[in-house]
Amino acid sequence: MNRRPVESRSLVYAVEEAYATQIPVGRHPVAMLDLAVPADGVDANVHPTKREIRLQRERLAFSALQQSVRATLVQTIGIPAYGEPGRRPASMPASPFAGSDVPMFPYDQSAGAWGEVDRPLLGTLRILGQVGLTYIICEGGAGLYLVDQHAAHERVVLERLERDMGRHGQSQLLLEPVVVTLPRAVRGDLDEYVAALRDLGFSAEPFGEEEVVVRAVPAALRPRHIDGVLQETHEALDEEGAGPGWRARLAVLLSCKTAVKAGQRLEVAEMQALLEQLDEANLCNTCSHGRPTAVLLSHSRLEREFGRR
Amino acid sequence: MNRRPVESRSLVYAVEEAYATQIPVGRHPVAMLDLAVPADGVDANVHPTKREIRLQRERLAFSALQQSVRATLVQTIGIPAYGEPGRRPASMPASPFAGSDVPMFPYDQSAGAWGEVDRPLLGTLRILGQVGLTYIICEGGAGLYLVDQHAAHERVVLERLERDMGRHGQSQLLLEPVVVTLPRAVRGDLDEYVAALRDLGFSAEPFGEEEVVVRAVPAALRPRHIDGVLQETHEALDEEGAGPGWRARLAVLLSCKTAVKAGQRLEVAEMQALLEQLDEANLCNTCSHGRPTAVLLSHSRLEREFGRR
Repeated sequence: MNRRPVESRSLVYAVEEAYATQIPVGRHPVAMLDLAVPADGVDANVHPTKREIRLQRERLAFSALQQSVRATLVQTIGIPAYGEPGRRPASMPASPFAGSDVPMFPYDQSAGAWGEVDRPLLGTLRILGQVGLTYIICEGGAGLYLVDQHAAHERVVLERLERDMGRHGQSQLLLEPVVVTLPRAVRGDLDEYVAALRDLGFSAEPFGEEEVVVRAVPAALRPRHIDGVLQETHEALDEEGAGPGWRARLAVLLSCKTAVKAGQRLEVAEMQALLEQLDEANLCNTCSHGRPTAVLLSHSRLEREFGRR
Repeated sequence: MNRRPVESRSLVYAVEEAYATQIPVGRHPVAMLDLAVPADGVDANVHPTKREIRLQRERLAFSALQQSVRATLVQTIGIPAYGEPGRRPASMPASPFAGSDVPMFPYDQSAGAWGEVDRPLLGTLRILGQVGLTYIICEGGAGLYLVDQHAAHERVVLERLERDMGRHGQSQLLLEPVVVTLPRAVRGDLDEYVAALRDLGFSAEPFGEEEVVVRAVPAALRPRHIDGVLQETHEALDEEGAGPGWRARLAVLLSCKTAVKAGQRLEVAEMQALLEQLDEANLCNTCSHGRPTAVLLSHSRLEREFGRR
């Protein structure tokens, strides 16, 4: 911060939030941030050694930092090479904010000169077929692409949910309303839970003390079996325990429970549609649990494997 | 030898011969052999320390050993797992000759209790397609199989050549005889070269001092472009230099020059036929240069790759 090392739980949390659903659960990003703020915007006299600081407009800094880190991630997404999942951070730019005169907020997409991102449009690949009813096998210029159908669809659904958040016009009315029991983990927070469902695009109301009646679902989720999906989501929430992050986890769980499963047969047209939808997603290289959606078995790796060179 | 460590260049050579075309050029097998011969069949008084021996029926021992090692290899062929080419010696039996009462020659196939060989019939796999016009991608119970079309076909042709050796009835008459120049590396050995071609199933005669006229080719080779194939074979022989092993190398080179190349488009029916032919080969896990014909990307490896477990 202004060329002085400082600790700030709030900024650390902003970085972790930006990486949410991007790296596997239990892993943490490593980051060094070079931040400049006006001298009168920061109070360094919080701690005797001046290691801690207080920002005047902390909320603004938090959300700007989170958006900036996430935008950088979106820009630098690559498909991991087979055999090194998660180990390659794609082609991270040497300096995301070339020079020090690039303002951090708002993030300016045209300002970054990232170098080429080596993620092809998956929708343009030649689909060979489905293996183990789990992976979609495609060929592209760089080699053989393997796509995890569940991970890919989970990401697609999650991004759609997030995109449509608050746009209630997108909801789909159910033919018959569905009644589900409140997750035990959020018991007592019925109103807050209903509000969370509404934020996601559900039309929902309390129904007695422990139940919720749902009349419409977000467009991103298919209305079929929505009672089953909500039931499974609630069970997963109960299993994991609620905690303060349950609102964010709700969307992740809904995307997971709605997505195509491993073991489900897909027609070529369905695979094609899924790959195209994944191309539209921003954070398309991981599912909402941080697992890779696609890996690349490059031609050069295949050549080495077969002793061709 | 009879429970005493000995050195024998002849037996070492027999083992190396048995591994020929099975391991990459420049690599050597490691073996410990436990041989029992009648006491009066071996002369141990060749060297003061008795480290060297002379076998009475050395030729018989040589060929028996070679056949026995090769038969063991045939029995224990597995498809290497992706990422460990050549490093896994398939499932070698703990003791190929369980007890010491199993006669080495002739090799008794029913006597060996090898444990299951994990090579499926490639012809029964579901073909997904061709990648990079080089690899055939198939699905089987264990996962994703990648087959190198050139390596596979090279092995198929070589085995057919070896099988038909001496069976001249199998030759295919050419519409027009073909004249090719003797390889420079064997210049002066015209008669011996013609004899080598005949052993392989060619109908060939000397034609002047430095040329050979070919009227029929072995059934294993397709007669199309046989002049080009012979020309390339001769060039390769010249490049490598002849040496005493040129007769054996002739078959290997012919199989290589006749086989389907990488970069050649194959129809599904052609891929299917190739896999079935490879199943009929004995030493089907390597091409004649020791490169793998197929590798397996197992389900469990895929699951780890995608963080599914």
